[in-house]
Amino acid sequence: MSASPAPLRIVIVGGVAAGASAAARARRLDESAAITLIERGPDVSFANCGLPYFIGGEIGDRAALAVQTPASLKQLLNLDVRTSTAVTAIDRAARQVTLQHVTDGATETLAYDKLILAPGAQPLRPPLPGIDDARLFSLRNLGDMDRIKAATTAAAHVTVIGAGFIGLEMAEQFRHAGKDVTLVELQPHVLPLLDPAMTRLMEDELRRHDIELVLGDGIASFADAADGRLACQLASGRTVTTDFAVLALGVRPDTALAAAAGLELGPRGHIKVDTFMRTSDPAIYAAGDAIEVEDFVSGDPCAVPLGGPANRQGRLAADHILRPVEAKPFAGVLGTAIVRVFDVSAGLTGWTEQRLQRAGRDYRAVTVNDNHHAAYYPGAKPLQLKLLWEPVNGRILGAQVTGLAGVDKRLDVLATAIMGGLTIDDLAQLELAYAPPFGSAKDIVNLAGFTAVNTRDGLVTPVDHIPDDPAIQVVDVRPPPLVAAHPLPRADAINIPFGQLRSRAGELDTTRLVVTVCALGKTSYFAARVLAQKGFDVRSLTGGIRAHFDPRTPAKPPAP
Amino acid sequence: MSASPAPLRIVIVGGVAAGASAAARARRLDESAAITLIERGPDVSFANCGLPYFIGGEIGDRAALAVQTPASLKQLLNLDVRTSTAVTAIDRAARQVTLQHVTDGATETLAYDKLILAPGAQPLRPPLPGIDDARLFSLRNLGDMDRIKAATTAAAHVTVIGAGFIGLEMAEQFRHAGKDVTLVELQPHVLPLLDPAMTRLMEDELRRHDIELVLGDGIASFADAADGRLACQLASGRTVTTDFAVLALGVRPDTALAAAAGLELGPRGHIKVDTFMRTSDPAIYAAGDAIEVEDFVSGDPCAVPLGGPANRQGRLAADHILRPVEAKPFAGVLGTAIVRVFDVSAGLTGWTEQRLQRAGRDYRAVTVNDNHHAAYYPGAKPLQLKLLWEPVNGRILGAQVTGLAGVDKRLDVLATAIMGGLTIDDLAQLELAYAPPFGSAKDIVNLAGFTAVNTRDGLVTPVDHIPDDPAIQVVDVRPPPLVAAHPLPRADAINIPFGQLRSRAGELDTTRLVVTVCALGKTSYFAARVLAQKGFDVRSLTGGIRAHFDPRTPAKPPAP
Ligand SMILES: Cc1cc2nc3c(=O)[nH]c(=O)nc-3n(C[C@H](O)[C@H](O)[C@H](O)COP(=O)(O)OP(=O)(O)OC[C@H]3O[C@@H](n4cnc5c(N)ncnc54)[C@H](O)[C@@H]3O)c2cc1C
Ligand SMILES: Cc1cc2nc3c(=O)[nH]c(=O)nc-3n(C[C@H](O)[C@H](O)[C@H](O)COP(=O)(O)OP(=O)(O)OC[C@H]3O[C@@H](n4cnc5c(N)ncnc54)[C@H](O)[C@@H]3O)c2cc1C
Ligand SMILES: CC(C)(COP(=O)(O)OP(=O)(O)OC[C@H]1O[C@@H](n2cnc3c(N)ncnc32)[C@H](O)[C@@H]1OP(=O)(O)O)[C@@H](O)C(=O)NCCC(=O)NCCS
Ligand SMILES: CC(C)(COP(=O)(O)OP(=O)(O)OC[C@H]1O[C@@H](n2cnc3c(N)ncnc32)[C@H](O)[C@@H]1OP(=O)(O)O)[C@@H](O)C(=O)NCCC(=O)NCCS
Repeated sequence: MSASPAPLRIVIVGGVAAGASAAARARRLDESAAITLIERGPDVSFANCGLPYFIGGEIGDRAALAVQTPASLKQLLNLDVRTSTAVTAIDRAARQVTLQHVTDGATETLAYDKLILAPGAQPLRPPLPGIDDARLFSLRNLGDMDRIKAATTAAAHVTVIGAGFIGLEMAEQFRHAGKDVTLVELQPHVLPLLDPAMTRLMEDELRRHDIELVLGDGIASFADAADGRLACQLASGRTVTTDFAVLALGVRPDTALAAAAGLELGPRGHIKVDTFMRTSDPAIYAAGDAIEVEDFVSGDPCAVPLGGPANRQGRLAADHILRPVEAKPFAGVLGTAIVRVFDVSAGLTGWTEQRLQRAGRDYRAVTVNDNHHAAYYPGAKPLQLKLLWEPVNGRILGAQVTGLAGVDKRLDVLATAIMGGLTIDDLAQLELAYAPPFGSAKDIVNLAGFTAVNTRDGLVTPVDHIPDDPAIQVVDVRPPPLVAAHPLPRADAINIPFGQLRSRAGELDTTRLVVTVCALGKTSYFAARVLAQKGFDVRSLTGGIRAHFDPRTPAKPPAP
Repeated sequence: MSASPAPLRIVIVGGVAAGASAAARARRLDESAAITLIERGPDVSFANCGLPYFIGGEIGDRAALAVQTPASLKQLLNLDVRTSTAVTAIDRAARQVTLQHVTDGATETLAYDKLILAPGAQPLRPPLPGIDDARLFSLRNLGDMDRIKAATTAAAHVTVIGAGFIGLEMAEQFRHAGKDVTLVELQPHVLPLLDPAMTRLMEDELRRHDIELVLGDGIASFADAADGRLACQLASGRTVTTDFAVLALGVRPDTALAAAAGLELGPRGHIKVDTFMRTSDPAIYAAGDAIEVEDFVSGDPCAVPLGGPANRQGRLAADHILRPVEAKPFAGVLGTAIVRVFDVSAGLTGWTEQRLQRAGRDYRAVTVNDNHHAAYYPGAKPLQLKLLWEPVNGRILGAQVTGLAGVDKRLDVLATAIMGGLTIDDLAQLELAYAPPFGSAKDIVNLAGFTAVNTRDGLVTPVDHIPDDPAIQVVDVRPPPLVAAHPLPRADAINIPFGQLRSRAGELDTTRLVVTVCALGKTSYFAARVLAQKGFDVRSLTGGIRAHFDPRTPAKPPAP
């Protein structure tokens, strides 16, 4: 190698997911670069996503969460890591940042050729009365974790405010640690990002584990309770008295530094970047929870504060700095996310029905149920999948999956399908791995494709609720023992088991609309086909009663 | 509904996967059709794929394997099911088939408007001396299963001939039932469809469960052993003495009927069909193990005797008969397949390296290792993924996955990616569901994408073996305790732990090629980047020693 040019000075602000990934990739691309990783907190490169599990005791070894340390990053990646050091200002003209040491307040400046901002996000703390109470925690880093873990030891009852992904993980882990738990959520259902029906199973699971759910009620203020504990006062007037509470209300991007430097921000304060993670200043890149990127489905600006995108964006920033020709533009985000609570998992990829509705976009939706693997092989567990697609071209817009096993697999297949621009016809043809312990000859993803195609082609017309209108005939095609054990909410439903439908269709009034109903939405589809061909105007309850009000309804009466 | 036309007469030959699926779909599309399902055997619509698990006792309830019965198919689908009835001739001109009742030999004719052939395949029984011995079984249907199960009860030692998917399942299940098992395979490795290195973990698992592996040796003849048991004589001269043996050598299409009717067949006897499952006679369709379809990757004719394709092809035949305008052409097959043996799973989708080589196609390959979910979360299990792609455009040609958990998920993601025409760049960007119990912020599929892109872009050059040439410097960058515990097959390898490589690179000869080696192929990549930038000509062992000769090599020394 010939006489080397001056090493490129890369300064990275924020040393966890996006920042550490950018630093690691930069080093692999350029051994000679001077790479400085600056982190305000005491730790770098830790596993935020694992924090709840240490609190609950599922992860026993705290050191396992520190994926790397400054020393290991020095040894492996020759990085100059400065912890307990905040970047307090960016001088874009001079291309230098001001550093302040958290411990002694001393400042210094550091010059950069390229600056990567990966400051992440901070938990939301709404300005409510009592919000500064010492018994109110947020969880973002190892310090927060240690504080919550210490508080947990002494507590009997914990309140989690917000039932999103992190809130659910926290609620589960507190219960795992033997605490009484109340979970408060402003929306009428847990996992507000998901469509309501897809959260029923999760709510059921939380209740089965004696977690108290307070839904459709927001936090209004905090105060001391008469017994000296913490009183969480809700908008409804109700008070939850607790030993301490965790706020899991979402995050806001930590972008005061970027704003002060005059970088362009989005409407909610995220740093705007192009598809190579360049901010409005071409010498400055940004990545992770602090930025706004393109939504893969709509192309609109959007922010997805998750670990996967953060890591890949950080890596891409380094890529574009060091090999701008080869670097590939960021494809956009789908918002793929998942959570496991006890035995139930739930997640989404792409858009939900409520989001499509809010955006006024045209879509169609079906819900299907099946087992996670062949029913005849022991251990088959129920799984539910909701699929949304674009009517004009059949493209998949989004999917939600919930169930007791195999949820992650279907989400990943559907995320891949969305990124590949696949249609409902393609889903019907996917050739997935099938052996009895793993799947079915027709996987639930295929079934979702079949059902969507059947809907598009007019073979069946789904409805997503049981109509109240008494003029509409609700035909329950389940076996009578199931009807008795799991009755429909409409008492005047007519029970004709599917096996008798062909011979007993004469009992129905051809002039009135029929809605067929079963446990899963499969037999009701079969019934709708029979009745349609007998001249009925018929709809089928998509997803069956399992999706809509009885998440554990069996499809068959138990074997005698 | 107005005066109905004469009902369409649909006759289906073969009543299991493709046949029953065709019948079911046909009924849903047309309530008035006269649908007759003709099956030579006593059972219809049973779960062939579950047969091994009943023999081994994992499935306890035989009735669970009979997914439907003639009676249930009558009740649910109004099908006319004729079991123990063979179709012995097709009169294409008269559009009728001859039926023969298996019990009494009586014959009759049956007219059709559309005929669907779903006769499946039969286990191969090579014409070897002794092949008619009563102690030689094949497994295809419930009758075979019952015979093998009965023989198993009395046996102490069982031999399985053929180590493909079904052979492995049988070997596992015999062991599960407490038998001594010998598994004989002509190829030098189990799972002959997979590339050798991707079968190491499976072989290791078989040996750990005391299954005797006889590899690279074929069966030559069968005879009585001196002790009255069965002697399986192998090509090598070796004899395996056993209580009984199961032949699991693959299948041949059961197409004598189609051949006699003059339908066009492929070179290995499969029925040729178009993308709507039409044979050379437009009134006759065919589906399932008996047919030849397009390979998705190459477009060449190919046969994949698996349950998923069979079911979807049967469904498509019915679709095209009853709604030819809406039916979508068959997309082709990937050959996605998977098997689980004790704790290890392995599978493939698309093409393997050996198949690409045989076809003389240009490709690139990398192998990566990771855990199936975040390493810091308890229970992380190793996973290995081999990715093949087309150099000219980066398209994924195939993938193989093996490991202790999460194998099916990655295969499904990759099958979906192939069907979506995704490239290695797209894999690097996939946004898969990540929470600690399910995956990693960079899933192994992303890592495979990264590694492939790094290879394509020249950041690293993989090799898939450790060269013998003593002129080549093999640099083992693992920690010394691991090197001692899991030595390389080349004694003159130079051990420089990665953390010391930057300072100790001077110990290496810049004029000689270097191959870096570690457990997983990750640190060796890091090392290759360091050395390349120091001016070395360097290659990295892709997949590490875990992929090539020590499938359970740990990546780190055990914690003290
Ligand atoms: C409890 C919890 C569970 C989670 N679970 C999941 C999950 O299961 N799956 C998933 O995908 N994601 C999960 N996430 C989200 C994921 O952790 C984040 O998306 C990811 O960490 C974002 O990475 P980042 O680098 O952008 O920001 P961060 O990880 O927040 O890192 C930013 C760092 O920058 C530092 N910093 C900020 N400003 C400055 C400054 N001016 N000077 C110096 N340093 C500065 C901060 O101190 C911080 O350490 C979880 C997060 C939490 C908190
Ligand atoms: C032990 C075993 C395990 C397997 N495991 C898996 C697995 O894990 N995953 C997977 O994807 N696949 C698996 N398969 C393969 C899968 O079962 C087949 O691909 C599928 O059954 C093929 O369906 P088919 O309808 O084409 O043929 P078949 O299922 O073979 O059905 C054809 C039927 O046609 C009947 N027939 C033939 N000729 C006539 C005639 N002239 N008249 C009347 N009837 C006739 C036959 O008696 C037969 O019952 C397995 C197969 C076996 C045997
Ligand atoms: C039993 C058998 C006849 C069933 O055929 P089938 O009715 O087509 O198959 P399924 O029971 O899986 O049901 C699939 C149908 O229900 C629909 N469906 C499934 N779940 C649904 C849901 N929740 N809501 C709406 N529709 C649903 C599908 O769309 C499909 O209908 P379509 O083909 O009209 O689109 C056939 O699959 C069979 O014989 N299987 C056993 C043999 C076998 O496959 N062996 C090899 C592998 S072991
Ligand atoms: C620890 C950390 C700095 C590691 O960064 P990293 O070295 O880029 O990441 P990994 O250890 O996953 O290694 C990935 C690299 O190894 C390569 N690699 C991985 N396995 C490989 C294999 N078997 N063969 C070849 N290369 C492999 C990848 O291609 C990638 O290199 P590249 O970016 O140059 O292409 C960073 O991921 C981090 O801080 N993580 C913890 C924080 C966090 O992510 N929090 C949020 C989620 S909890």
